[in-house]
Amino acid sequence: MKNTLGNAPILAFDIFGTVVDWHGSITREVAALYPQVDADAFALAWRAGYQPAMQRVRSGELGWTLIDDLHRLILDELLPKFGLSALTETQKQHLNKVWHRLDPWPDTVAGLTRLKTRHTICSLSNGNIGLLTNMAKRAGLPWDCVLSAEVFRAYKPDPATYLGVARVFDVAPADVMLVAAHQDDLAAARACGLRTAYIERPLEFGAKHPKDVSPDAANSFHAKSLVHLAEQLGC
Amino acid sequence: MKNTLGNAPILAFDIFGTVVDWHGSITREVAALYPQVDADAFALAWRAGYQPAMQRVRSGELGWTLIDDLHRLILDELLPKFGLSALTETQKQHLNKVWHRLDPWPDTVAGLTRLKTRHTICSLSNGNIGLLTNMAKRAGLPWDCVLSAEVFRAYKPDPATYLGVARVFDVAPADVMLVAAHQDDLAAARACGLRTAYIERPLEFGAKHPKDVSPDAANSFHAKSLVHLAEQLGC
Repeated sequence: MKNTLGNAPILAFDIFGTVVDWHGSITREVAALYPQVDADAFALAWRAGYQPAMQRVRSGELGWTLIDDLHRLILDELLPKFGLSALTETQKQHLNKVWHRLDPWPDTVAGLTRLKTRHTICSLSNGNIGLLTNMAKRAGLPWDCVLSAEVFRAYKPDPATYLGVARVFDVAPADVMLVAAHQDDLAAARACGLRTAYIERPLEFGAKHPKDVSPDAANSFHAKSLVHLAEQLGC
Repeated sequence: MKNTLGNAPILAFDIFGTVVDWHGSITREVAALYPQVDADAFALAWRAGYQPAMQRVRSGELGWTLIDDLHRLILDELLPKFGLSALTETQKQHLNKVWHRLDPWPDTVAGLTRLKTRHTICSLSNGNIGLLTNMAKRAGLPWDCVLSAEVFRAYKPDPATYLGVARVFDVAPADVMLVAAHQDDLAAARACGLRTAYIERPLEFGAKHPKDVSPDAANSFHAKSLVHLAEQLGC
């Protein structure tokens, strides 16, 4: 049964938390630049502003806005709360682009490289194209194609994003599999007819805040890593 | 002087004729599948329909239409003229996707691989994302990012495409260089503030129809191949 389910020729990957370790990367950079700050709390607070910021776009309160700009809106609110009001504009711009410099999980590059041998692999992230491209170049992520909410002008979980991948490749939704570490993202993709693969990332929010990585039987696959997914797909 | 001009961190490449040999690829495939057809004339006629078809979109006569669909509109007009009216729908769909199976010029992969070491390299083609991704995967084109008219919903030479590359990467237009084998494409990019590099492709239209590849001093670079461009850029 699993082999049949694995025949989706297109694999689309969630990025933040699934492919790269946003918490660890931001914590490391903030701790190095600003040792007086609680870097763990800073990273969590920045990420916590992400869904509400996108909701302002989805609701129409904000026009179409790239994630780089949403990250900056959130950052500008955070800086005074963490005693960083004195940063220069150059420092703020540099810090905001830490999202372009996120490190991959240890299994990511090996897993993607194996999966690419038998599948077309692309990102499907709410991150903007420039962010995803800079991240991939730095981290060595071997995408066949960088797809983003920016291409579809809609943020996940809008169906336009999941169905957009199928449309781009001129295939049926069932020929696309979303790979993600978030059950809500996967559920939204499944509602559009995509296959789904869950990746366990128990440390997505840092070692102090372990995440529930229980399986959901509705997913086509459940894997401990991208290498484990490649093994299950026979790559 | 040339070194200064070469500092554009982003290189955006025209595809059809610049990176891949559409005439040779289509001629070979048509000759193999339908030996009774004048494959040289067929390839030229198909390509000749390309600008008029895009003009129907630019003028508003057609809504936004992907190149795959424009190629099919042109193909459907060509088939009776070349005695191929009897093709099945499956055969027509397969032939239409020959544009996904174009071969690179002999220097392409080596040149892009060298240029990628010091620049972000992306496509900037009127071809759709799926076409460009399938082409890259088959031919081994190592793009950092696949950009297309489809992302900007405008066809070159619309300024939205050239300026769109700068916007995606959050850089000034002068930090982007368009690499193309067509002076009109380069002139339109230059009018938007991009740098430009001309690549000689004298056989773009086949050995029977050599193309003028004279330099235009307005370009930042003039190269015989993508390897030659890499040499000039110190890659």
